[in-house]
Amino acid sequence: MPIDSSALSCPAPLARYDTVQLAHGGGGRMMRNLIEGLLLPHFALPPLAGATLAPPHDSAVLEFDGLRLAFTTDSFVVSPWRFPGGDIGKLAVCGTVNDLAMAGAAPRWLSCGLILEEGLPFETLRQVIASMQQAAGEAGVQIVTGDTKVVDRGKGDGIFINTAGIGVIPPGIDVSPSRVGVGDKVLVSGDLGRHGIAIMSIREGLEFDGAPASDCASLAALVAELTALGADLHCLRDLTRGGLAAAVIEIAEHARVGIELDEPAIPVLPAVRGACELLGLDPLYVANEGRLVAFVPPAAAGEALQILERHPAAAQPAVIGTVRDTHPGSVVLRSAFGSGRLLDLLSGEQMPRIC
Amino acid sequence: MPIDSSALSCPAPLARYDTVQLAHGGGGRMMRNLIEGLLLPHFALPPLAGATLAPPHDSAVLEFDGLRLAFTTDSFVVSPWRFPGGDIGKLAVCGTVNDLAMAGAAPRWLSCGLILEEGLPFETLRQVIASMQQAAGEAGVQIVTGDTKVVDRGKGDGIFINTAGIGVIPPGIDVSPSRVGVGDKVLVSGDLGRHGIAIMSIREGLEFDGAPASDCASLAALVAELTALGADLHCLRDLTRGGLAAAVIEIAEHARVGIELDEPAIPVLPAVRGACELLGLDPLYVANEGRLVAFVPPAAAGEALQILERHPAAAQPAVIGTVRDTHPGSVVLRSAFGSGRLLDLLSGEQMPRIC
Repeated sequence: MPIDSSALSCPAPLARYDTVQLAHGGGGRMMRNLIEGLLLPHFALPPLAGATLAPPHDSAVLEFDGLRLAFTTDSFVVSPWRFPGGDIGKLAVCGTVNDLAMAGAAPRWLSCGLILEEGLPFETLRQVIASMQQAAGEAGVQIVTGDTKVVDRGKGDGIFINTAGIGVIPPGIDVSPSRVGVGDKVLVSGDLGRHGIAIMSIREGLEFDGAPASDCASLAALVAELTALGADLHCLRDLTRGGLAAAVIEIAEHARVGIELDEPAIPVLPAVRGACELLGLDPLYVANEGRLVAFVPPAAAGEALQILERHPAAAQPAVIGTVRDTHPGSVVLRSAFGSGRLLDLLSGEQMPRIC
Repeated sequence: MPIDSSALSCPAPLARYDTVQLAHGGGGRMMRNLIEGLLLPHFALPPLAGATLAPPHDSAVLEFDGLRLAFTTDSFVVSPWRFPGGDIGKLAVCGTVNDLAMAGAAPRWLSCGLILEEGLPFETLRQVIASMQQAAGEAGVQIVTGDTKVVDRGKGDGIFINTAGIGVIPPGIDVSPSRVGVGDKVLVSGDLGRHGIAIMSIREGLEFDGAPASDCASLAALVAELTALGADLHCLRDLTRGGLAAAVIEIAEHARVGIELDEPAIPVLPAVRGACELLGLDPLYVANEGRLVAFVPPAAAGEALQILERHPAAAQPAVIGTVRDTHPGSVVLRSAFGSGRLLDLLSGEQMPRIC
C-alpha cells in the first residue's frame, strides 16, 4: 500500500494564509502581522493637519488649535454576550473609555454602532443598552451619536457593538511607549486574568466554586488620579487581548528597551490560577478588561503605587518589574529562583472572541 | 372539518415585535421606532461639558474651547461587498465623510473598525483596504486609528466595517434641521437611486444594458463650496437608507414645517426609473451614497444651484421643492398635473443591507 505523505504532515502554525483565521483577531503575532503587513501600510498616510499617528498606541493623538484629543475605536464581538461581571454593553463602553485613558486623556464622548442579527430578542438589546448607559454614567462619558444596522439571520451573531471615543489630554501629560526609559518601574493595577477566565468558564460550561467575575471596569477615574504624577507618568497600557504579556512585549519592542518582570510579584487570584491550570492557559496571556500597566521613573513608583492602592478600580496593585538596558525589545520573566525565560507573543490566541 | 382561524389571518405589518427584524435596519418607520423607543431614551443623557446632541441629525456637534467638532459613526454591512461603482471600503469612508459634511464640517479624521469572518480571502481584504485608502485620500481625511476582530465562520458575513469620524465646523456655519424655515427652497445635488439600483441589480442577477453604477462619492468638497453661502446654508442631508423621501420627511417632522416637492423636477436617470419599475421600487425611497438635499432661503437658491451645477460631485442638480407653512410635519409630492400625495416613511424597507 503506497504511503500518502500528506497524511504524515504535521499541521504546523503557518506564517502565511490565504484567508483570515480566528487567530488573526487574537492579539498575538498573527494579528500584529495582519495590522503591520496589510493595514498600516495603507492607512499611515503623511499626517494631515497636525494629526500625529502612533500605531502601537491605544489611541491616536490629534493635535490642533492648541488642543490634544485622543481618538480611538473598538468593535466588540464577545461570545456569549453576557458573562459574570458584565455584558457586551458594559465591555463596549469600558473598552473604549480605557483606550482613551491609556493616552492620558479624560474620556468625554462615545459613538455607538450596532450590528444586530435578525431574530435578536429585544429584551437582550434592552439589557445591553441599559448596561451601556450605566457604564457611560459611571465613566463620566456621553454617548452622543450612533448607528444601527441589521443583518440577516446566520450572517451575524446576535449583537456586535462598535464604540469610538474622543477624550481630551490635559496639558503637561505625555503618555506614550516612546517615553519608557531604562530604570522605569513597571506597575500593574491589579490581579490578572479574571475577564478571560470569566468568559471561558461559562463558555466551557465549567461551574466551579469561587469562579471569578470579569474585572471589566472603567479605568478613567484611576488614570485621572495618576495624572497627578505629571511628566513622570511615562506610559500606560490596558491589558486586553493577549494579556499582560502582549502589552509589555509591545512596549518593549516599540521603546527598544528590555523589560524584566518579577514573576512572584505578579498578582493572580488562586481561583484564576486554578482555572488556568484546568484549561491549559497561561495567566500572563489571559485578557483583562479593567487592569493597566504603568511605567514611571523609580522616584515616582512609590507615589504611583499609593495612588493605585487607595483606588477602588485597583485590586492588589504591585510593582512587577523594571526596564533594563539589556536585551532591548525583549521581556524576561524572572522566577522566584532567579532563572529567566523570554516571553514571546503567542502566534495565535488562547481564547477567541473574549472582547 | 373545523376551520383553523389562524390560517385565515393576513400577515399584517405588526407594530411590535419581540425580536429584531431586518426591517429595523431599513431606514423606515420601524428603524425610527427602534431608535426613538429604545436607544435614545438611554443615550440622551443630560449633556456633559457642553456637548450638544441633536438626535435626528447625521452627526453630533461637540462645542468646547471655542471649537465645534462634528462626530459621527456608521457601520457598513453591504452585501455583496463589491458592486458597480465601489465596494464596502469606499462606502465606509464616503458614508462617514458625508455624515460629517452634512453638519457643515470639514471632515478630518476617521477610525476603522473591522469585523472579519474566519475564511475571508486576504485578497478581498486587500482590495477593501486599498479602496479605503483611495477614498480617504480623495476626501482629504486620514484614517488614524483602528481595530480588528475576527468571528467564527458562519457568525459574520465576510467583512463588516465601522467608521467613526471627526470634522471641524467652520465659524459662521450653522447647518441643522431646526434652521429650516418657511419659504426655503429644497435642492438636490443629483439624480436619485443609483446606489440602491446598482446593488440590487447584481444581487438579483439582473444584467441589463446601461445598468447604473453606484453614485457612492465623498460630498466633502461640494459642501466646502456650499459653505460660501454662510448663514444661508440652513440644512443639509445626504440621501442614504430610505432615499430622498426618508431624508425630507425627517426634516419636515423635526422642523415642524410642510415640505412640497415638485415631482417632475426630481432627477431620476431613465435606466434607474426602468430598473425601479422592473423591481417594483419607488425611486424616491431608493438609497444614494453621493447625493444630498440642501435647504436655503429663496434669495440664495440661485447661487446654491450654480455651485452645484459646476461641481463634479453633482449631476443634474435641481430645485425640487419649497418649504410651506401648511401641513407641518408632512411632505407632499405634487405631480405634473397638480395633484398632491402625502409621502410617508415605509414601515420596513425596500432593500436590506444596501450600505
